[in-house]
Amino acid sequence: MNPIGAVIKVGKETRRREKVMKVKYSFMSDYSELVHPQVLSKLASIGNAQFDGYGLDGFSEVAKKLIKEKIGNPEADVHLVSGGTQANVIVLSSILRPYEAVISCDTAHIFVHETGAVEATGHKICTAKGVDGKLSVEEIDEVLKFHIDEHMVKPKVVFVSLSTEVGSVYSKEELTAISEYCRAHDLYLYLDGARLGAGLASPACELTYADIARLTDVFYIGGTKNGMLFGEAIVICNKRLQEDFRYHIKQKGGLLAKGASLGVQFMAMLEKNEAGEDLYDQLAKRAYEMAMKLAKGMKDLGYGFLSEPETNQIFPIFPVSVAEKLHECYGFYDWAKVGEGRIAVRLVTSWATPEEKVDEFLKDLSGIKQ
Amino acid sequence: MNPIGAVIKVGKETRRREKVMKVKYSFMSDYSELVHPQVLSKLASIGNAQFDGYGLDGFSEVAKKLIKEKIGNPEADVHLVSGGTQANVIVLSSILRPYEAVISCDTAHIFVHETGAVEATGHKICTAKGVDGKLSVEEIDEVLKFHIDEHMVKPKVVFVSLSTEVGSVYSKEELTAISEYCRAHDLYLYLDGARLGAGLASPACELTYADIARLTDVFYIGGTKNGMLFGEAIVICNKRLQEDFRYHIKQKGGLLAKGASLGVQFMAMLEKNEAGEDLYDQLAKRAYEMAMKLAKGMKDLGYGFLSEPETNQIFPIFPVSVAEKLHECYGFYDWAKVGEGRIAVRLVTSWATPEEKVDEFLKDLSGIKQ
Amino acid sequence: MNPIGAVIKVGKETRRREKVMKVKYSFMSDYSELVHPQVLSKLASIGNAQFDGYGLDGFSEVAKKLIKEKIGNPEADVHLVSGGTQANVIVLSSILRPYEAVISCDTAHIFVHETGAVEATGHKICTAKGVDGKLSVEEIDEVLKFHIDEHMVKPKVVFVSLSTEVGSVYSKEELTAISEYCRAHDLYLYLDGARLGAGLASPACELTYADIARLTDVFYIGGTKNGMLFGEAIVICNKRLQEDFRYHIKQKGGLLAKGASLGVQFMAMLEKNEAGEDLYDQLAKRAYEMAMKLAKGMKDLGYGFLSEPETNQIFPIFPVSVAEKLHECYGFYDWAKVGEGRIAVRLVTSWATPEEKVDEFLKDLSGIKQ
Amino acid sequence: MNPIGAVIKVGKETRRREKVMKVKYSFMSDYSELVHPQVLSKLASIGNAQFDGYGLDGFSEVAKKLIKEKIGNPEADVHLVSGGTQANVIVLSSILRPYEAVISCDTAHIFVHETGAVEATGHKICTAKGVDGKLSVEEIDEVLKFHIDEHMVKPKVVFVSLSTEVGSVYSKEELTAISEYCRAHDLYLYLDGARLGAGLASPACELTYADIARLTDVFYIGGTKNGMLFGEAIVICNKRLQEDFRYHIKQKGGLLAKGASLGVQFMAMLEKNEAGEDLYDQLAKRAYEMAMKLAKGMKDLGYGFLSEPETNQIFPIFPVSVAEKLHECYGFYDWAKVGEGRIAVRLVTSWATPEEKVDEFLKDLSGIKQ
Repeated sequence: MNPIGAVIKVGKETRRREKVMKVKYSFMSDYSELVHPQVLSKLASIGNAQFDGYGLDGFSEVAKKLIKEKIGNPEADVHLVSGGTQANVIVLSSILRPYEAVISCDTAHIFVHETGAVEATGHKICTAKGVDGKLSVEEIDEVLKFHIDEHMVKPKVVFVSLSTEVGSVYSKEELTAISEYCRAHDLYLYLDGARLGAGLASPACELTYADIARLTDVFYIGGTKNGMLFGEAIVICNKRLQEDFRYHIKQKGGLLAKGASLGVQFMAMLEKNEAGEDLYDQLAKRAYEMAMKLAKGMKDLGYGFLSEPETNQIFPIFPVSVAEKLHECYGFYDWAKVGEGRIAVRLVTSWATPEEKVDEFLKDLSGIKQ
Repeated sequence: MNPIGAVIKVGKETRRREKVMKVKYSFMSDYSELVHPQVLSKLASIGNAQFDGYGLDGFSEVAKKLIKEKIGNPEADVHLVSGGTQANVIVLSSILRPYEAVISCDTAHIFVHETGAVEATGHKICTAKGVDGKLSVEEIDEVLKFHIDEHMVKPKVVFVSLSTEVGSVYSKEELTAISEYCRAHDLYLYLDGARLGAGLASPACELTYADIARLTDVFYIGGTKNGMLFGEAIVICNKRLQEDFRYHIKQKGGLLAKGASLGVQFMAMLEKNEAGEDLYDQLAKRAYEMAMKLAKGMKDLGYGFLSEPETNQIFPIFPVSVAEKLHECYGFYDWAKVGEGRIAVRLVTSWATPEEKVDEFLKDLSGIKQ
Repeated sequence: MNPIGAVIKVGKETRRREKVMKVKYSFMSDYSELVHPQVLSKLASIGNAQFDGYGLDGFSEVAKKLIKEKIGNPEADVHLVSGGTQANVIVLSSILRPYEAVISCDTAHIFVHETGAVEATGHKICTAKGVDGKLSVEEIDEVLKFHIDEHMVKPKVVFVSLSTEVGSVYSKEELTAISEYCRAHDLYLYLDGARLGAGLASPACELTYADIARLTDVFYIGGTKNGMLFGEAIVICNKRLQEDFRYHIKQKGGLLAKGASLGVQFMAMLEKNEAGEDLYDQLAKRAYEMAMKLAKGMKDLGYGFLSEPETNQIFPIFPVSVAEKLHECYGFYDWAKVGEGRIAVRLVTSWATPEEKVDEFLKDLSGIKQ
Repeated sequence: MNPIGAVIKVGKETRRREKVMKVKYSFMSDYSELVHPQVLSKLASIGNAQFDGYGLDGFSEVAKKLIKEKIGNPEADVHLVSGGTQANVIVLSSILRPYEAVISCDTAHIFVHETGAVEATGHKICTAKGVDGKLSVEEIDEVLKFHIDEHMVKPKVVFVSLSTEVGSVYSKEELTAISEYCRAHDLYLYLDGARLGAGLASPACELTYADIARLTDVFYIGGTKNGMLFGEAIVICNKRLQEDFRYHIKQKGGLLAKGASLGVQFMAMLEKNEAGEDLYDQLAKRAYEMAMKLAKGMKDLGYGFLSEPETNQIFPIFPVSVAEKLHECYGFYDWAKVGEGRIAVRLVTSWATPEEKVDEFLKDLSGIKQ
């Protein structure tokens, strides 16, 4: 079972390569490896113990308690679901009245890469350009002021992601400003944390889990992209949004009969070791470190970046010939043409990326003549 | 982590018992135990092998091939998703135009127990009474004839489940008749196979996997209730319904980033042993046998049943005092009052039910004075 | 331009007759005649006066004021839309959260004759049998108690119609009981008043407009079936349901650019004459009187009824041969087989039914040999 | 009943003025006057003739025949509904499968001014910038190429309007190019004709009704903005899209019980006079002529325009002080700031605009010192 056909995507054109059988390593995503062994051990440890269905089991209870401790908010409501698009759809459709809308960047996952899932629940997404995948207060304000009466939708939720779809992070100041704006204008702030671990592992992001819980109304902690088989923990901080949430999960097909499979995995991720650290943060940190090592190596070789590397997604710029050569042995996405003959590509590291693969990649890169 | 609060449900009244700490065993459902060890071993065997995301991995490819072999239809399309409500919603909303509707029994899971998930995608469910949870051709015909013009919805899909929500199975003759009616009247036939293993394990059901594939337009093979962590395999036999199906999965939040987690599990369930049997059928058979042993034991003690036991869900009738006594040590649902002072209860066995627990239950039952 | 092909509908079978060119009169509906001349005169009187769009004009303002006076509730919100299905969809979808449902009779227009319009906005309708098209508190309570947890929808609105789809009316006692039940159980009560005039014109209904406004949360006053070209006035009595209602109207396509066309018509219907009576009540009364004259005449000829005639829809029972004979000269719907060789038919009178047509019908009926 | 509060809208800021009692004339819209007298006479001529309900009457039949003659396509399907947003929602939701999307300009009515009505039926709108409210083939192609796989919606319908929301018209060449592109790429072309009369009345638009019918798959002919009380005629040219369309109308609340009220009005609009001209085209022409007279007068006074006047919506640029002065006596919308101290405003003429009001406006304008 060898990886991985590389999808070649430049600007508007995309094609799927034939399976490349000799790929040394894939930097295509942080969900290319199945599951961290500790998570699997935890699942195995349950044996045939019986439990209540639909997330009302004791494991999920413990997992939720661990999450509330991690974010320092015992009053929050926590719900475990199986995927990010699912989390986004359930949360947003639970908050909005039929004519209300979401404000997001036009690079937001919900806007570009969820097959119109939010619109399929009846809601429009109003976009702003953003910078580096991030919304500013000014842009949110502009969207709000544009929508003046009942002939237009009424924006009600601001959607941000951390880290963003292009690997950047909000600073504490930026997210605080957005949060304050939302509260002053009766908007809800929802944070998509598919890569929350990756975001908070970055020194560029001075935010803590407690900050996130304090500044947002709802967010989720992504497990799939940080070493779990699957699993995202929706955290509802705003009490007004907590009522009847399980109805929404069930109606949208998100209530697993064996919800325990989520609870057990999150237990494995969040129980602290003797050093007081949990696996979730350890894995996120490791992905970050591998990305930084890659980035530094490429900088040392003289390569620049589309934007400054901040998390486990980095966007080096190569001559097209170099990128083509790398594609022979490594999986990654082409991202965007950058001037004549140059291209930005996306490399993603994960909790499972072996350091020797990073070294090998850098060595191979240094051997390619531009 | 001890089980399981018992939900007491008689007629319209339901209450959740306090956690019963001394329960000897729970017969509440077939999803009370996490996962069969062979499935877990298979997941462990993957290690850190890398794979394509979103179900395009090689494991899923193998799993789909095994499924097509099992049903004897190489032309079918197979898609793996994480839960039954999700499967139902994705399939039904993919088939129907906005004004088209589903025909089902009024005991159907989609009608009663999915929080209006089908309606939430815009479609009405037209119900018939059914007998023992099963639709007849006459009833379908009546529903069809009732809907005469554009002031009413247009029924387009017939929904059946096997085994049904009340433990019964369609005979080959019954399902064939429905299938023929559907084809003659331009209706699609969709079979909810959350408990397909349990259904086909029953001698009362003379149907094979190949029959199901031949008689229906779409169906799914349920894994969650037959020993997997989670996972249902949607099988689209009718070519007209295959187009663009992955769009529907993605939009409804059902496309797992690590789709491989489904593929690997189904591989574990469907690879045949030396005797030519797969784990899926073995586990279904075991659940059936435990139910039959329970049933026979109760019959021997003189108890009758709400309907003849056919699958792993059985509905014995007890004096209320007996049921109350049993509740002290066993988990199960009260189902329906039956005359004065008697009650039908639901007992469910699973792939994991230990034979000694069945024996213990029967022994305890025989010791209770009526 | 002569009327009217008769649709023959008995039990489940329906067919449309060829256009019957010699029909003397059609009793098929109360929307077979276009518009009362006074309404048309009022429209003509506007000339080319200019007005604000989308219902913000001065005519609509006056009309709303007249409606609030008629119902004795200056705090109500009034919105004018063009049709009944539209009113039902806008109101119900504005009230409900995604997992919430409606309770209605299984004869309710929203359940049978609106092509799944309510479900198309995502909501399930939970039905009870009812008696004579009317819900009882006991039935509502049964539906409520059946829905116990997040695996099921949560009923939130009770839908009643007055007069009902089968011509009956709620008594003051009956509607009061339902209203009190709803308030005690946090349900909203919505009354479909497509034939509100017809209902309140009936002595069998002791309710007043003020009673309706007091007992319900939302209702509408139907104009289309009482002499207007088109137009229904939604009245929102419950302040919690008033917020942002125009957004819902606009989103569902119900905000007419020339909302004034609704305002002017309702002005014509509601301005009082010297005797203190408005056209709306006069027309409703006339339809009632013609129905009663028809009913009395048929009783005098020895015919019985499916249910006691209470409003402008009546359901006499004829031998099939008599009904067939009548179909040669009169338009009406066959309704239901009643024993061997007899059939109940539906006759509807309207504001425009000429008394001589009633006389002629009775004379013709008396001349038919059974 | 005097008009009309002027809404002041500049860039993002809008406020509603106090009712201005001394307004001489409103150029705010082409739906400020109720109905042309000939249309009203036709309605009056019906008297109490009886007709079939829900658009199956003989008047509607005649109207549909007249429309098919006007567009030269006897095979088209015609349906009469009451408003433009309603038409857009019914048509688009009838065409699209759940994951399919619309391509439009970001100035399109469906994107900006219909309160998310299209999204409320579950569909995303993918926008392009456009020039003067018009899409180009290049832009459509870019949108199509951007959407590469099942993680994104699949664009399926191209939405254009004629005349556009900013008063421009497509040339025959432009619309032909779009039509050919759509057919080559399996896209449907839908044309919003709320102001189709105004568009085709413009010499800048060399298109005929027959061209529109030939080049598009569906379009509608707007009556509300061209002298009718209300009414839009949906024309379905593509046979694949004709099936079961009445179900969609009914479900979305658009099937008027007295559909005859639409049929009669369209008869009045489309019956030809001795000169072979119908009222529809006459009224559209008159609105155009008044706009051109206004435009010429303003040009003669030295004023420029935001874009060249082509239809009954024109956008002169004034110094802010001049616009303010005009607001004292005339109703119109401020549109956009144009450099320092200047503003573009929107003036709309209609079938009912008296020539002397145009003259008066120009005289008043000439008297204002800049």
